[in-house]
Amino acid sequence: MEYVFAKRISSLQPSAIREILKATADPKIIPFAAGNPAPEAFPVEAIVRFTDEIYAENPISALQYSVSEGFPALRETLKSYLKQTYNIGRDFDSINIVSGAQQVMDFSAKVLCNEGDTIICEDPSFIGSLNTFRSYDLNLVGLPMEEDGIRPEDLESALQNNPRAKLIYLIPNFQNPTGRTMSLAKRKAVYELAIKYNVMILEDNPYGELRFSGSPVPAIKSFDEVGIVIYAGTFSKVIAPGIRVGYVCAPAAITSKMTIAKQASDVHTNILAQMVCDRMLTRYDFPAHLEDLRKIYRHKAQLMLAQLDEYMPSMVHTVPEGGLFVWCQLPVGVDVVAFAKEAMLNQVAVVPGNNFFTDPSQPTQALRLNFSTPTDEQIVKGIQILAKLLNEWK
Amino acid sequence: MEYVFAKRISSLQPSAIREILKATADPKIIPFAAGNPAPEAFPVEAIVRFTDEIYAENPISALQYSVSEGFPALRETLKSYLKQTYNIGRDFDSINIVSGAQQVMDFSAKVLCNEGDTIICEDPSFIGSLNTFRSYDLNLVGLPMEEDGIRPEDLESALQNNPRAKLIYLIPNFQNPTGRTMSLAKRKAVYELAIKYNVMILEDNPYGELRFSGSPVPAIKSFDEVGIVIYAGTFSKVIAPGIRVGYVCAPAAITSKMTIAKQASDVHTNILAQMVCDRMLTRYDFPAHLEDLRKIYRHKAQLMLAQLDEYMPSMVHTVPEGGLFVWCQLPVGVDVVAFAKEAMLNQVAVVPGNNFFTDPSQPTQALRLNFSTPTDEQIVKGIQILAKLLNEWK
Repeated sequence: MEYVFAKRISSLQPSAIREILKATADPKIIPFAAGNPAPEAFPVEAIVRFTDEIYAENPISALQYSVSEGFPALRETLKSYLKQTYNIGRDFDSINIVSGAQQVMDFSAKVLCNEGDTIICEDPSFIGSLNTFRSYDLNLVGLPMEEDGIRPEDLESALQNNPRAKLIYLIPNFQNPTGRTMSLAKRKAVYELAIKYNVMILEDNPYGELRFSGSPVPAIKSFDEVGIVIYAGTFSKVIAPGIRVGYVCAPAAITSKMTIAKQASDVHTNILAQMVCDRMLTRYDFPAHLEDLRKIYRHKAQLMLAQLDEYMPSMVHTVPEGGLFVWCQLPVGVDVVAFAKEAMLNQVAVVPGNNFFTDPSQPTQALRLNFSTPTDEQIVKGIQILAKLLNEWK
Repeated sequence: MEYVFAKRISSLQPSAIREILKATADPKIIPFAAGNPAPEAFPVEAIVRFTDEIYAENPISALQYSVSEGFPALRETLKSYLKQTYNIGRDFDSINIVSGAQQVMDFSAKVLCNEGDTIICEDPSFIGSLNTFRSYDLNLVGLPMEEDGIRPEDLESALQNNPRAKLIYLIPNFQNPTGRTMSLAKRKAVYELAIKYNVMILEDNPYGELRFSGSPVPAIKSFDEVGIVIYAGTFSKVIAPGIRVGYVCAPAAITSKMTIAKQASDVHTNILAQMVCDRMLTRYDFPAHLEDLRKIYRHKAQLMLAQLDEYMPSMVHTVPEGGLFVWCQLPVGVDVVAFAKEAMLNQVAVVPGNNFFTDPSQPTQALRLNFSTPTDEQIVKGIQILAKLLNEWK
């Protein structure tokens, strides 16, 4: 049979990253491509203990249908946690639990955007979110990034030129793919512009709790006194991604529409996983756990950056203060896609930067490297392989 | 702030059933409204044992990111299981794992339907699926049901009159809300019409394995030799709904687009839950477990039907051969919505039938009763309360 697909889906290609990920299931491949948390970062003992406790105490409640808004106790726990720790959330806000933060992008687009509307974003940005927006037939307007984020002037022009702009999508901390962090001054400027032009901000913060150097910068949501910011958080990087638990803090008028979207999508998020997350925040030394994670990622990042500086001095790179990624610029003349292919043939998986741009056909020298997944030995060996490739590149 | 919502979502109301469900969290309320599996039907011991095994053997694989298509072993297991048990699946088909069967309806609409396209369905039908379709701004054309399903003549007219029909949505076994089962002759006729008019069938079969009387009727998918049927299955009713694991068996050309939709939605389904389902099928006497479930539901259904016949003879009802629901017709003159409200005041939750129609404003005498959630005592007491209400109705 010949199948005719919906307009929104027929232009979308499978995520290049997930295709590369599949190839890297092979343990011989050095994984600089994925965005997986370090296996040693999973709090396995606690997860297993809490799972056992929950099943011992009340197995039915962990297996029966639950409510679409999310496990009530976890919503309450997150409400205090976000408020006390990050000053996120006001009386007009509410919290919903979702199946990973990606679903916040999905529901934000579904609830707020009609076909042909515009989302303004950093360029490059997280390919998963860009593809989610594309799946709603939305127009992406990408703004170039400086070391401390997009320029407010560019944002203002974009807001003026795109009357159908519905969302400003930002990853302010240790952005994927660049590892860059938006300065406080720019966060404030962006927030003021959002109010001036009455366009909501979608603040995606999967890595914020993984800061391993420098000083924390407040979330844009922390100064949202009017209800113009949708904040997406997740346990993927600080507990485990396979459990698929994320959350959204946004004005209740928005989250109540997201509840309807949830009912129409997957009804509710795996309830055992939500219960485990609640106990991780309430019956576990979560701050100490985060400190452990930061140690792990600080070490890995420093090792990769040192290797890059020693063996690949001609390749400029960002110096992330947290997160999982380094963004590198290959010397002019080196074809990035060809280089990534050659790297894969040499057992090192990297992602060519073009995948992350709103227009993937735009020329770029960029390459994204992940330091959280590989072991120390793989980081050392992998960078040496890339260095050799680059040195011999014709 | 004033928020402007997307067209697709602004007309959608929260599911009335889920709102009633929330009210029935109160244990004093007799739950004839929900569609929850019986708590005693959960294979708790096996789920706990397999969870422990998985965490003991390889915790990282149960916590790390996984692939969007689903846990490879479970996909393979389901492929053999569906083929061997139900003759479902041909060489052109593939299986994807999703976060509950609802997500199959979501992805089918997302992948195959543009705004304004038509979905033909049974009328009444499952409100969750209808709302999913509505969330894509689709036109619903409902066909009246007879005891053995919709009439093929009606389907043919609908196919002729709706050139933008993209899907025929059916729940052939123990339909929600009616409990009715489509006859083999009608299944074959529907399949032939789908081919004749080149419109895909979306066969939703959440209850098929819960047949407690009568003879099994083959799934429409079991005679699909051309790739025109999308088959949605789930572990919600046969293992547990809180784990959110469903699956789709459809032509690979379709499932590969659904994989893209999955990447743009929730990336992948909770991996531990997928691993547990795999072991339930491969390391457990699953057929014996299904037999146990059938015993539980046979008993509950027989009890409710006997109570209805004894105490509410003026209320006509279906006689389901499986599933979770009985569909009742209150005597003419009794306002169904008012009756349901009065029942709730008397601590019995039921769902007025209008919620399940494509046009919820159409007059109906119907009421949906669920027999899987209440205990025996609740069934007896609840029907007596409803009977008293009806007898005293003015």
